[in-house]
Amino acid sequence: MTGADEPSAVDTDGAEAAESSRQNNTIAALDSPESIAAQVSTRIEGFLESKAAQFLAISPDADEIGRALLDFTQGGKKIRPVLLWWGFQLAVGDDSSRGALADGVADAAGSLELLHAAALIHDDVIDHSDTRRGKPALHRQFESQHSKLRYQGAAEPFGVAAAIVIGDICLALSEELFERSQTMLGITQLARGLRATLRRDVMVGQYLDVLAEVVPLEDERIGERAWEVLSFKSAKYSVEQPLLLGAALGGADEDQLEEISRFGLPLGQAFQLRDDVLGVFGDPAATGKPAGDDIREGKRTVLIAESMKKLSPEQIRILAVRLGDPNLSDAEVGECVSMLTESGGLEAVESSIRDKHEEALSVIREWATADADARTARTKIGPTAQRQLTGFAEALSYRKS
Amino acid sequence: MTGADEPSAVDTDGAEAAESSRQNNTIAALDSPESIAAQVSTRIEGFLESKAAQFLAISPDADEIGRALLDFTQGGKKIRPVLLWWGFQLAVGDDSSRGALADGVADAAGSLELLHAAALIHDDVIDHSDTRRGKPALHRQFESQHSKLRYQGAAEPFGVAAAIVIGDICLALSEELFERSQTMLGITQLARGLRATLRRDVMVGQYLDVLAEVVPLEDERIGERAWEVLSFKSAKYSVEQPLLLGAALGGADEDQLEEISRFGLPLGQAFQLRDDVLGVFGDPAATGKPAGDDIREGKRTVLIAESMKKLSPEQIRILAVRLGDPNLSDAEVGECVSMLTESGGLEAVESSIRDKHEEALSVIREWATADADARTARTKIGPTAQRQLTGFAEALSYRKS
Repeated sequence: MTGADEPSAVDTDGAEAAESSRQNNTIAALDSPESIAAQVSTRIEGFLESKAAQFLAISPDADEIGRALLDFTQGGKKIRPVLLWWGFQLAVGDDSSRGALADGVADAAGSLELLHAAALIHDDVIDHSDTRRGKPALHRQFESQHSKLRYQGAAEPFGVAAAIVIGDICLALSEELFERSQTMLGITQLARGLRATLRRDVMVGQYLDVLAEVVPLEDERIGERAWEVLSFKSAKYSVEQPLLLGAALGGADEDQLEEISRFGLPLGQAFQLRDDVLGVFGDPAATGKPAGDDIREGKRTVLIAESMKKLSPEQIRILAVRLGDPNLSDAEVGECVSMLTESGGLEAVESSIRDKHEEALSVIREWATADADARTARTKIGPTAQRQLTGFAEALSYRKS
Repeated sequence: MTGADEPSAVDTDGAEAAESSRQNNTIAALDSPESIAAQVSTRIEGFLESKAAQFLAISPDADEIGRALLDFTQGGKKIRPVLLWWGFQLAVGDDSSRGALADGVADAAGSLELLHAAALIHDDVIDHSDTRRGKPALHRQFESQHSKLRYQGAAEPFGVAAAIVIGDICLALSEELFERSQTMLGITQLARGLRATLRRDVMVGQYLDVLAEVVPLEDERIGERAWEVLSFKSAKYSVEQPLLLGAALGGADEDQLEEISRFGLPLGQAFQLRDDVLGVFGDPAATGKPAGDDIREGKRTVLIAESMKKLSPEQIRILAVRLGDPNLSDAEVGECVSMLTESGGLEAVESSIRDKHEEALSVIREWATADADARTARTKIGPTAQRQLTGFAEALSYRKS
């Protein structure tokens, strides 16, 4: 553990921490996702309440900022916090002193959740989305507020302006909460660097996604581009990097990080490929999104790129016109959906999901090798932890919503 | 100096640093604003080039991000970097080892410039501004790109989306550059905390500004609100806090920070009050903005709030309708401008500028007291440094553009 007893600890730069990691025992069981989500939510709530009080001290007019952020961060699956937490546990192993660091780990996990909230707030402005997590998107909430309070000028630009600024504030708060975690866990350049990379990757991935939607469908880089967006905007950011960041905070060395990447990256890719499939084929009752939503939004997913390989020029022409047209009829969407099935695009993606998922599972099996002599992995898990990791991976790759 | 020789330094938490500050000599001369701006620009450029290479390694499509940011950060007056640098010098005093830290100070100063760039990029989206620093605003540049490269879909939302994401990236890069400065200067909780406060204040100030423009002009809090926006969005962020952050990095203790606030806050207020005056009365040839620009934009400045106190109900009614109407004729703008003069609003603001400016100068005089025995100030400056500070203050309070 890096400087657990010293709030403002010496930077161990991984050396001391790596030593502790080498002494690890096999980890029997991971904390449950439910208990992690509950602990992280409590920390976020307490943090945001203290921030809301600061905003209010600046001006009574700033009251709404804290309220909106508290409300926005209530929901969500907390996938990234759970993965960060587990990354930490995998690095630390069964260490009885671990509990004392729980608040620090919860803050680091919470900081990822705030970063994610900031990304979603700006995403919804960019995509002109009306809803998020079953409620109006933040810019729509402020738009409604404008009308309700009879503010002056146009309501829609006010909603957009408020959401841009509150997204920025949320991003800044994510930094602050990470700082707080560092005070408790000890500052390491490795973890700080990983966090900077994670933040950069999701933002660059978002830029590539914005660009992908306006580049002509026939562009030759459609396949590479779809994989770039999938990897950087989601697979790395949502799965691999939270695990790595948690592991680095727990004192993992480069070898263990590399091992965790071999698990996290393919799992993250399976996770996002599933997202692409659900965006077109998902049951609206389960996903909460209209059928074929990604077609009307014009997302250039790997599913689209794979389908393009087999479609006729005439079919490509039709798809090029329809992708991204928010006013498509259900019948028109249905025709596009059929093309993605009949072209073999869907099958290709499902096959990739199986491959990526299996790749991730094989790493879990390495970690769980019972024969201590045959073991080369740094990460060591018992049967319960193996079951938990396998179950969670299953849920990411084969979820319905 | 806090841990100058240890890249990953122990957190001194100000104690050791304060000791060094107490041993200061009188500072004879400050570095010139021109040389500071040049050094900071060089560091920003080198940093952005290394980042651009990273973006490019993610995808050839990400090339445009680095180019846009390099271009955007070429201009600007670099007021905040100069003030941070001077804050550092005021804290360190005439210390021959200071030069070794120049790169670290330049990075910290550069990080403020990147934060400012991020704020301006998002500001221009929010205000629907067409130009910035004599070039098209970033969202307009990407809008043009969309047309030029014959991208699909609508050009305007693409420009907005790209500018939101690139603003986010710029904000993230500002964090990274600050991190780099900390590695060179030594990490102190005091400086990190001040930076978090600065970032929070400008963002909350921006939210208050967005809100101020839609609240009815007759709202009773118009005066307080105008002062809140002026102080948090600008006076503290542009002048007081850069000085404080630089001083904290140089090892200033709480007493010296308090002393620097007594200089920086009123000077920042004079700086922004001047901005309000120039926004209505500025010479378009000097400011680069159309005459009466703030009227069409609907800014709710202290100038407006002061004028409101003396206007007749009929005049207030006219002003309420016109403020924020982008389609006003020059004659209509001219009538509004006359109201601000005739009501005594302009005179009240000019009087405030004089008071605030004088308040700042009186602190400079304390620092320059020649009689060592009569001296109570922590900050000690010689006649040349006094002339430099007075000249810069003069330029902030009484500038023409």
